[in-house]
Amino acid sequence: MIRKVHIVGAGNVGQALARVVKDVGLQEITMFSKSKTTSHLSHDLQPLLKPYDDLYKAPADLIILAVNDDRIETVAEMIPQRGQVVVHTSGSTPLDVLKKFPARGVIYPLQTFTAGHPVSWDNIPVFIEAADDLTRKRLLQFCSAFSPNCLVARSDERMKLHVSAVFVANFVNHLFVLAHQLLQENNRDFSLLMPLIRQTIDKAQQMPPIEAQTGPAVRNDLKTINKHLEMLENHPGKKEIYRLISQSIKEKQDQNEQL
Amino acid sequence: MIRKVHIVGAGNVGQALARVVKDVGLQEITMFSKSKTTSHLSHDLQPLLKPYDDLYKAPADLIILAVNDDRIETVAEMIPQRGQVVVHTSGSTPLDVLKKFPARGVIYPLQTFTAGHPVSWDNIPVFIEAADDLTRKRLLQFCSAFSPNCLVARSDERMKLHVSAVFVANFVNHLFVLAHQLLQENNRDFSLLMPLIRQTIDKAQQMPPIEAQTGPAVRNDLKTINKHLEMLENHPGKKEIYRLISQSIKEKQDQNEQL
Repeated sequence: MIRKVHIVGAGNVGQALARVVKDVGLQEITMFSKSKTTSHLSHDLQPLLKPYDDLYKAPADLIILAVNDDRIETVAEMIPQRGQVVVHTSGSTPLDVLKKFPARGVIYPLQTFTAGHPVSWDNIPVFIEAADDLTRKRLLQFCSAFSPNCLVARSDERMKLHVSAVFVANFVNHLFVLAHQLLQENNRDFSLLMPLIRQTIDKAQQMPPIEAQTGPAVRNDLKTINKHLEMLENHPGKKEIYRLISQSIKEKQDQNEQL
Repeated sequence: MIRKVHIVGAGNVGQALARVVKDVGLQEITMFSKSKTTSHLSHDLQPLLKPYDDLYKAPADLIILAVNDDRIETVAEMIPQRGQVVVHTSGSTPLDVLKKFPARGVIYPLQTFTAGHPVSWDNIPVFIEAADDLTRKRLLQFCSAFSPNCLVARSDERMKLHVSAVFVANFVNHLFVLAHQLLQENNRDFSLLMPLIRQTIDKAQQMPPIEAQTGPAVRNDLKTINKHLEMLENHPGKKEIYRLISQSIKEKQDQNEQL
């Protein structure tokens, strides 16, 4: 049974995990952060924070490395191997970077975390990987206390999940950034687009996205596409994205019709 | 006062407008469709449909051309000028294609319509353009009966709204298509991404999208970006979109930091 949990890193993922594990109340949590200040931490989490050096002394059943991907190996290097389970939380980092620890694993929540924007864990899928059956079982037990949607995925599949997440979250948000800029040129508010955005999401929930595709590209409406490209003449970045995605929409549609 | 309304075109926009105007109940609506069959129309709309030839005979106060953009001029050509208001519903077609009619205008609802997916008009912005003050006033009055969000926009601005809509609806849906394909390779369901997608939308409603940007590109995390590009080696279309949008995210971030 996992009783003592160390969370290393007090960024968005570290904080979100600390909060939900604390709320469940089954484990004793300690947080460690390289940052000397605690001011970015919410009041409920500040008491959990211990000096970074204690990380190498205090024993734990589970150590969660919620640090930037490129710091996982460095931090792992400094943690003594005492038989505890050590996991990272990275979508695109293989399990093997923790090979120093026999009981190693990954806890990857498929969600975007932003400080000050609390999320409900009720439907966040959490992907688990482990080096052996016992560790996997312990991690699934730990995870199922705060998520009803704990799944097992290997490193290569987790990376594919991460790339998919980049497309539907990071890239989608960037399209919002571009539309926001276009609207600002006429002092129009981005909120004008929200009903359209919500309808787009609702449709994606109800039918396969390929069937929900609308717009000039899927109709191969070259006249409209060319008008839009002309309008974007002074926005070379947006124009290039418009052209590339329109072409991709057309290609996927053609492939779909051939099936 | 507009009493008799003709809606030409029984596609998604024509049907959505016919239904909401019918539901308000202030006008007598007639629909005209080139298609001989009515089977794609819902039962409530089928009685409104008249033979296409009647369009040229029956008088109306308002004729709404809800046809494909490239058919607007052809259809307008065949409608006699009897002093009625004639509008189209296209985002990227200038008002002037209707110059044959002194009382001409545009009613452009900023929403994506799909048959069988009813929308609430309560917060759909509807953009009005008209050739003269009286027509504008009449159109605003007509529109405000079914939308609390009727706004005035010139042709050039309407095109910009349309391009923005393409980015946040059509292109966003295409990113869903690409992610859906990636997940299918591991037989994973697209619904796994819905909590992440919903969180992305919720953040866009709460803060400017540029501040909500997360992911490897905005962190300039080249190691992760390169892993993803390598994973997409056998998906050249997705790889190119990944590269271009990541580059655009980085550029916008740099510009934003310089402000």
